[in-house]
Amino acid sequence: MSIGKTAAQVAHAAVSAAEEARKNKYSWWRAWMNEGQCKIVLKVNSLEELRELYEEALKSDLPAALIVDRGLTELKPGTTTCLGIGPAPIELIDKITGELPLL
Amino acid sequence: MSIGKTAAQVAHAAVSAAEEARKNKYSWWRAWMNEGQCKIVLKVNSLEELRELYEEALKSDLPAALIVDRGLTELKPGTTTCLGIGPAPIELIDKITGELPLL
Repeated sequence: MSIGKTAAQVAHAAVSAAEEARKNKYSWWRAWMNEGQCKIVLKVNSLEELRELYEEALKSDLPAALIVDRGLTELKPGTTTCLGIGPAPIELIDKITGELPLL
Repeated sequence: MSIGKTAAQVAHAAVSAAEEARKNKYSWWRAWMNEGQCKIVLKVNSLEELRELYEEALKSDLPAALIVDRGLTELKPGTTTCLGIGPAPIELIDKITGELPLL
């Protein structure tokens, strides 16, 4: 993926996960918006790893959004590109993603 | 900037501009969320150009968010990194950004 396409996928995950938090975890969303919307972009090695992280986030009752591209530009339709987790208290997110390297 | 940092800045612009639209242009926001949240990531050549685009967006009454980094990681505090415009009808955004190349 180009840098622009990558950034758009990450932005999609951020907007979707934030919207889920706004609906279901309002106090977490409110705190995050007020504190500057911290975001950390990490990388995984496989689609399987991404799906496992998604399942873990759901089991932990954290806002999570798995992004599937419509395939109108660079990718095949239905390609899973990234995962947004949070906003949530950092210690809860770190339990799931704390070992991953930065992108 | 690293790809991850770039993506985080774009995501910040997307969340902030979308939130502004949700508050002030609800029907545009609703339509965008329902239609798959299309995002296009473009590049400019200078900070001055970015600021001019921001002014144009405000004059056109479009949701817009200019992102200034807090400088905790890769950048100096107060560095302007990117601009989010919309969600809005595409013809209104294209009047401002239609000539810019993809990132």
